[in-house]
Amino acid sequence: MDLTTITNPSFIKELDKEQLQGLAADIRSFLIENLSVTGGHIGPNLGVVELTIALHRIFDSPTDKILWDVGHQSYVHKILTGRAGEFDTLRKYKGLSGFPKMSESIHDVWETGHSSTSLSAAMGMAVARDIKHEKSYVIPVIGDGALTGGMALEALNHIGHEKTNITVILNDNEMSIAPNVGALHSILGKLRTAGKYNNVKDELEFILRKIPAVGGRVATAAERVKDSLKYLVVNGVFFEELGFTYLGPIDGHDFTELERSLQYAKKMEGPVLLHVITKKGKGYSPAEMDKIGTWHGTGPYKIETGDFVKSPAKGPAWSALVSETVRKLARKDRRIVAITPAMPVGSKLESFAAEFPDRFFDVGIAEQHATTMAAGLAATGMKPFLAIYSTFLQRSYDQMLHDITRQKLNVFIGIDRAGLVGADGETHHGVFDIAFLRHMPNLVIMMPKDENEGQHMVKTAIEHNEGPIAMRFPRGNGYGVPMDEELHTIPIGTWEVLKKGEEATILTFGTTIPMAFAAAEQMKQQGKNVSIVNARFIKPLDTDLLDELFKQGKPIITIEEAVLAGGFGSAVLEYAEEVNHTSTIIERIGIPDEFIEHGNVDDLLMEIHMTPEHVAEVTMEAIKKAAERETV
Amino acid sequence: MDLTTITNPSFIKELDKEQLQGLAADIRSFLIENLSVTGGHIGPNLGVVELTIALHRIFDSPTDKILWDVGHQSYVHKILTGRAGEFDTLRKYKGLSGFPKMSESIHDVWETGHSSTSLSAAMGMAVARDIKHEKSYVIPVIGDGALTGGMALEALNHIGHEKTNITVILNDNEMSIAPNVGALHSILGKLRTAGKYNNVKDELEFILRKIPAVGGRVATAAERVKDSLKYLVVNGVFFEELGFTYLGPIDGHDFTELERSLQYAKKMEGPVLLHVITKKGKGYSPAEMDKIGTWHGTGPYKIETGDFVKSPAKGPAWSALVSETVRKLARKDRRIVAITPAMPVGSKLESFAAEFPDRFFDVGIAEQHATTMAAGLAATGMKPFLAIYSTFLQRSYDQMLHDITRQKLNVFIGIDRAGLVGADGETHHGVFDIAFLRHMPNLVIMMPKDENEGQHMVKTAIEHNEGPIAMRFPRGNGYGVPMDEELHTIPIGTWEVLKKGEEATILTFGTTIPMAFAAAEQMKQQGKNVSIVNARFIKPLDTDLLDELFKQGKPIITIEEAVLAGGFGSAVLEYAEEVNHTSTIIERIGIPDEFIEHGNVDDLLMEIHMTPEHVAEVTMEAIKKAAERETV
Repeated sequence: MDLTTITNPSFIKELDKEQLQGLAADIRSFLIENLSVTGGHIGPNLGVVELTIALHRIFDSPTDKILWDVGHQSYVHKILTGRAGEFDTLRKYKGLSGFPKMSESIHDVWETGHSSTSLSAAMGMAVARDIKHEKSYVIPVIGDGALTGGMALEALNHIGHEKTNITVILNDNEMSIAPNVGALHSILGKLRTAGKYNNVKDELEFILRKIPAVGGRVATAAERVKDSLKYLVVNGVFFEELGFTYLGPIDGHDFTELERSLQYAKKMEGPVLLHVITKKGKGYSPAEMDKIGTWHGTGPYKIETGDFVKSPAKGPAWSALVSETVRKLARKDRRIVAITPAMPVGSKLESFAAEFPDRFFDVGIAEQHATTMAAGLAATGMKPFLAIYSTFLQRSYDQMLHDITRQKLNVFIGIDRAGLVGADGETHHGVFDIAFLRHMPNLVIMMPKDENEGQHMVKTAIEHNEGPIAMRFPRGNGYGVPMDEELHTIPIGTWEVLKKGEEATILTFGTTIPMAFAAAEQMKQQGKNVSIVNARFIKPLDTDLLDELFKQGKPIITIEEAVLAGGFGSAVLEYAEEVNHTSTIIERIGIPDEFIEHGNVDDLLMEIHMTPEHVAEVTMEAIKKAAERETV
Repeated sequence: MDLTTITNPSFIKELDKEQLQGLAADIRSFLIENLSVTGGHIGPNLGVVELTIALHRIFDSPTDKILWDVGHQSYVHKILTGRAGEFDTLRKYKGLSGFPKMSESIHDVWETGHSSTSLSAAMGMAVARDIKHEKSYVIPVIGDGALTGGMALEALNHIGHEKTNITVILNDNEMSIAPNVGALHSILGKLRTAGKYNNVKDELEFILRKIPAVGGRVATAAERVKDSLKYLVVNGVFFEELGFTYLGPIDGHDFTELERSLQYAKKMEGPVLLHVITKKGKGYSPAEMDKIGTWHGTGPYKIETGDFVKSPAKGPAWSALVSETVRKLARKDRRIVAITPAMPVGSKLESFAAEFPDRFFDVGIAEQHATTMAAGLAATGMKPFLAIYSTFLQRSYDQMLHDITRQKLNVFIGIDRAGLVGADGETHHGVFDIAFLRHMPNLVIMMPKDENEGQHMVKTAIEHNEGPIAMRFPRGNGYGVPMDEELHTIPIGTWEVLKKGEEATILTFGTTIPMAFAAAEQMKQQGKNVSIVNARFIKPLDTDLLDELFKQGKPIITIEEAVLAGGFGSAVLEYAEEVNHTSTIIERIGIPDEFIEHGNVDDLLMEIHMTPEHVAEVTMEAIKKAAERETV
């Protein structure tokens, strides 16, 4: 069928089995074709085609609330709720989001991006329903990876205790983004293989009836055997212990099983967990055969071959640069241990893991644990490298503050995907870390101007023994600059003058340095010459250099691809206030007090006026104002 | 014995059973007596006397690493490691900390304050030990309450998977701070009652041998019954499923049982969880009989009667004021639901819980879940009141950002214990919330000048339908000001001029308003008259008032009992920059970039120069500078 004609999911209820199969096939073709052009989370979505159809068939969205944990697996849901026509704009500026969005559809009742939130949200919604005496279902769909996130486990514990009616769909594809880790993964593994013994319980009861009748303690013991039947692995004892009725495991690509189980789950009282086995990438063999997560989210690809269409990169991927430099240093420094919360591929730690299997830990989606485990390592003299995306470090705020910085432990935090990340949008931009880290005592925060400085900063971080040190680096690739053979350390808190000029000084770091140079070029054409400083240490500031600049009194312009409130520019304002300096004009350019949508980074920067033109304009204005003031 | 003569715990290994009992009795008397004067966490410490002695007898601290989760139960450990002589200074300024402190003793290998960190830290330490090929034990001691914190569950999942040698002591006293909640609590309850069936397993094996031999599927089934034995409730299936060897439950006040079990645990390979049942407050009947957590942490008390020695409070407790106003409003507004992460007593929510049992949720130590559950409630039209301490809101940073503020949901966050909290010290001061919340779009942050304004702010928060709104309030009691009968709302973003003056303006809010008045009084005596503004909205700022102040051009002084970096004063600097205003002198007073120790709040404020004298000095200086500038 023409999927773009769908306006809402009610039509699914009228379809027969054959039509459902046809719909599933159409959706798969649609996804494979469209995502080959736009890119997107192909693997997770191909895995939930039948499950999503079945959910919309058995439940009544939006009265019944389907919550997509993480949310990158909501494409099928988007198609079924009338958004197929917009898939050519997927994850593009002003286009369809890659995650659920309330503004897109009434069927998106909860927005996601980060993992493990759906159970807590579901609990809130179920409680609201009960207080209002409404009758509806709340159905969080959570992957096996997201289930290991601490807040999901907190929610399981609470839901199981309150006995609230919630229908949890555990979408188990045996891997989340990377292959899954953790004891829960083994539990699910056992449940999967035990599935075929579903009838064993009846047989056991038959056996028990044959146990000779005996009195006293042995009879009690026999009673306990009967009780213990429900604790057989086949019955999902882990979830039963937590207060859930465990159903499954079932084949998530079989409409008959799905519908029967969902209907059954609907009738149950109290919290239910339906264990659904799906195959990530189902129906597209390159994605289906993926073992390490390459097809979790992709850019454009050639459908026939599964080859990725890559724009040639000039320099190394930032993640690779950092992880590989750490690996090089780890050969001579046995204190170095690498930790990732479920991002071994994204953080390019595969080679490190292969070379140092005993010193590499993928802890699963568990940022809090990853961060405090790093603290524990550092407390006993090790040098942990915590590889974490800026947006996910948000989950570790208290661990950074309470465990790492307060105890002044020598942890190297590699903050990946710092700055705007583009297509993943507002839940994933790494634009808050400066504001939420800068007020933590004892912490050094730095960002390199290019990959060569980046490798020296890694060395600097590893050698730093005065407490924690964080290095931010952006998504994507370096510039292809020449790389020094020898690594050296950079003195903490020192900036670097990249260009000398007389009229004003631009202070910036990382990705916005080219913007400063482009602006300087424009100003040069208007006869103004400005300095550009690589403010590579965001904390501590280079106060010697700032003192000098204050003495000169020429305007200072700060640029940061991060939120302005409490950011780097504010640090400069604060320092000026601290030293009682008021005569220098200081102007800040950065991200305003709003959430930034998804889209091409250049478009996003344009939207928030972070362009060379704007930088030049602000700087010229400041120069003019300073001149006027001197005249007065 | 004279406990002050103890220098290190090695002497315990030489004691016989009777001497151990004597030591335990001496420690109990010492604690009951000393804490009656200083106050402190009496309940938790009386509960772990035998356990702590046994740990130091069986293990070799500090080679073997004992980690105290939360840490308020480390007093016995402090006594045994040579700190009894300092107990008169407990939790006092420059005195003994109420939590483990590396600077106090080599036996304090990990510092705590917040809960649920010990397992992650232990994992880091155990991994370090294994990499270094050292032989030692890592022994985290965690309560049943702390175990429900998400990061502890993340750690269990990871430790169980890696099979690392860690000896977890589960100190189960059936309540953490408040009576425990959650499915895990029920699991532990079952384990406690099942303890007496410890020998049942042998009997079951006997029965199974009697099962008639049959072929085929039934034989398989019989095999599975045998397998399932280990899943009997008596064996701690929940922890076994997670990959731990479960031992217990044992009586935590019986030296023989403790020693036998600890010796056994020492010999095991892989992670072990020893379930120890203790009685909070053991040996002091007022504390032992406590059912709701009154004796968790206390001020001074009379030993004979158990009556608390209370200094008479002028006004209502801040927590009570807020919770009771919410309760009043909840009578007319069925959207209101109250959520607390394990602090029903501290947040004074008992009356709300009694009156609205269906609309009250104590979710246990699970701040992340509490916060996103509130978001889920708000997403379906409810008005959740999230009662949370400032320091624990740190655990919900990402949930505040990603779930609540990003989705602009109408949650009322009551931020309790904002500002310096005193005796609990650096892990508990509520001084970071402004800096970590201020950069979140869509959020309103306010703090009242007194309890009367506080009740109106509660009304304001409940009526606010433009997104989340947070109200900070301090530890302790109000001033006893007259209370209005009628509640009204306060226009968002409006400040209030409390005192008019010509020479300068002090902008401040909450607890530091009296400091501003005292400073103003001192300045008046020097002939200078200053304005004082109640800057009750920290976000958004009252920009109309600021514009006016900027127009006047007189110095502005900001005071906040919160970190300066990225704080309220920075917001004022940022606004001045935004509107290109540079001529007004702005000076900020607040908490510098360091962690503040424990002690009396006045002493702490003195140490960081937050005094009326300093405010007056800074203001006078600014006035002088402004005058000089005008002369030029």
